[in-house]
Amino acid sequence: MIIIGEKINGFVPRTGQAIEEKDGDYIQMIAKQQSEAGADFLDCCPATDVGALETMKWMVDLIEEVSDTPICLDSPGADVLVESFGFVSRPGMINSVSIAGDKIEKIFPLIKGTDWKVVAMLDDEEGIPETAEGRVDCFKRLLGKMEEYDIKPDQVFIDPLVETLGTNEESLITFAKVCRDARELCPDIHITSGLSNISFGLPSRKSINMGFMVLAMQAGMDSAIVDPLNRDMMGLIYATDALLGNDEYCMEYLTAYREGLFGPAPKE
Amino acid sequence: MIIIGEKINGFVPRTGQAIEEKDGDYIQMIAKQQSEAGADFLDCCPATDVGALETMKWMVDLIEEVSDTPICLDSPGADVLVESFGFVSRPGMINSVSIAGDKIEKIFPLIKGTDWKVVAMLDDEEGIPETAEGRVDCFKRLLGKMEEYDIKPDQVFIDPLVETLGTNEESLITFAKVCRDARELCPDIHITSGLSNISFGLPSRKSINMGFMVLAMQAGMDSAIVDPLNRDMMGLIYATDALLGNDEYCMEYLTAYREGLFGPAPKE
Repeated sequence: MIIIGEKINGFVPRTGQAIEEKDGDYIQMIAKQQSEAGADFLDCCPATDVGALETMKWMVDLIEEVSDTPICLDSPGADVLVESFGFVSRPGMINSVSIAGDKIEKIFPLIKGTDWKVVAMLDDEEGIPETAEGRVDCFKRLLGKMEEYDIKPDQVFIDPLVETLGTNEESLITFAKVCRDARELCPDIHITSGLSNISFGLPSRKSINMGFMVLAMQAGMDSAIVDPLNRDMMGLIYATDALLGNDEYCMEYLTAYREGLFGPAPKE
Repeated sequence: MIIIGEKINGFVPRTGQAIEEKDGDYIQMIAKQQSEAGADFLDCCPATDVGALETMKWMVDLIEEVSDTPICLDSPGADVLVESFGFVSRPGMINSVSIAGDKIEKIFPLIKGTDWKVVAMLDDEEGIPETAEGRVDCFKRLLGKMEEYDIKPDQVFIDPLVETLGTNEESLITFAKVCRDARELCPDIHITSGLSNISFGLPSRKSINMGFMVLAMQAGMDSAIVDPLNRDMMGLIYATDALLGNDEYCMEYLTAYREGLFGPAPKE
């Protein structure tokens, strides 16, 4: 599983406060913690309309000072992403594009032939298609764009988009069908998800999030945007990989446990 | 999900101690606690060779004094099960039979035409078949016996038997295949599992047990022998049922949460 650490995001209240107060120590602390906890990428989202680019640069510089983990530039604005791309020193990830609008036209040329990755949402000009078929159609259009711009499947992390279970009981079923169909169309594509939207409005959100993680992995999701400091979730991810037959003799599970990535928290 | 509370079992150290010390108060306490936590059956296993029948009667009487939850008589000895059957006042469950030996011949005639249920292990005279196909063959022989003795599918809880993941990385895959094939052969059969064997010898057993629960439910398992006081596991079970589309508007999930069956533990 490819883990995108979710904590450096202005929409997370504690991080939003740190951004507002220009508290670089806090940003660096959660960058280091997430790297040590096994994050493969660190999401970096200013979540501000005003001064987004400047804030992004401040955050990227802070992160790069303390961590070698690749950065996932996260912004709704294509221009912010394009500009930010220029001041990151190592290939990372861009979050996100979609076939709606002109983000693909602006971003795909930048990452062609590089080691950069990109998250692609499966929505279109009309929003998020209700059915799995509709989202698979978005994926087919995305595949066309990938061919047009010569973007390799291994560079692309599709996000099939998950709706709240409380208002849509087919939410996981639809998500899983998109995963299976997309993987059949393009075996080397990556599939990721922010996932916590599944439990929005429901109590004991961790129960829903954990069940979703296992079922989505079983359907072929190979990445997730999560908090790598959530030891219960990390243990469940390693366990599920082993249960699905992807971890001979549980070697990766045992190594991660020995490295302290899950299990009882170490004494301070 | 049909929950069989696992705690009244002499192989659980604290319960074994209570049985040895004739501590009826403890037995009654865990009987009440498991009933209140949503157990549909209470497993009752003396786990003694000497005086098993006498101990079973003592335990059954204690449980029936404090709980209306049906009892699951659990013993390796067919004769103990047959004798115990006589002193239980409400229809419950018998744990277990298998096509090996003469347990079916002794127990099926007793439960024919009653509301009693029975757990049937999918092993045979040679032990536990290594492959899914071998266990499905056991199930086919079981179906023959059920027809012979006129036992309804709804009375039978098959246990596909789970091996330790640490020594068999195909363990869940085999288990899931048996579940799917068995349900296709006989849609109304129940499928249960003691499940904790999956994590034997591995650290952070709860991670493996929880991943297994979700994946086994996805494969069609509709019952489990677990500790209903494990709030994390109970939350995951309700969540998974909702995610799999079996709980309209999450009504059962929300009701169980409001009844305090999972989520943050209530203050003492």
